[in-house]
Amino acid sequence: MALYHPTPEDLELAAVLHALSDPQRLRIVRELSADPAPRACGSFDLEIAKSTCTHHFRVLREAGVIEQQEVGTSRLNKLRREELDESFPGLLEAVLAPARV
Amino acid sequence: MALYHPTPEDLELAAVLHALSDPQRLRIVRELSADPAPRACGSFDLEIAKSTCTHHFRVLREAGVIEQQEVGTSRLNKLRREELDESFPGLLEAVLAPARV
Repeated sequence: MALYHPTPEDLELAAVLHALSDPQRLRIVRELSADPAPRACGSFDLEIAKSTCTHHFRVLREAGVIEQQEVGTSRLNKLRREELDESFPGLLEAVLAPARV
Repeated sequence: MALYHPTPEDLELAAVLHALSDPQRLRIVRELSADPAPRACGSFDLEIAKSTCTHHFRVLREAGVIEQQEVGTSRLNKLRREELDESFPGLLEAVLAPARV
């Protein structure tokens, strides 16, 4: 079954802000922003259980922050930067800018 | 007892994003931004119970998004725009900009 991704028209600011409102998810988004190549969930240096990690990626995907593509047994993740920038200009930049989380 | 307000140094991006990640709270912040005069909780046109309203204002205050001042039996609310802009440049502007919530 294909993974659910909201269309650009369906992106909601409150859902995007909620997806970004967790330090671990902010860290994931920062890493995806720094290296735009699609990355597998396991490649992130997160000190959390695998199930928690899967949950965080799902929240990010369902809000439209990331795209997840199933390749073999892996899910590759990338930031939906263009769609986010178009729907909410300046938001991602402001969120990624501060060193303070 | 004085109401808790985080100092500017204690503002956390994840907490601020969480406070903003609700359509009713976004609406409150939009209204406070449009009219900078301190406003009582009851003056907002929100279709929610008073207790829910109180909860939303508390979440905004504890994250550092608004300042609440007790005047008689009322709590007057105003946006902590300068502190937010200093800690998270561009964030409030990006969040307040879109018509789409």
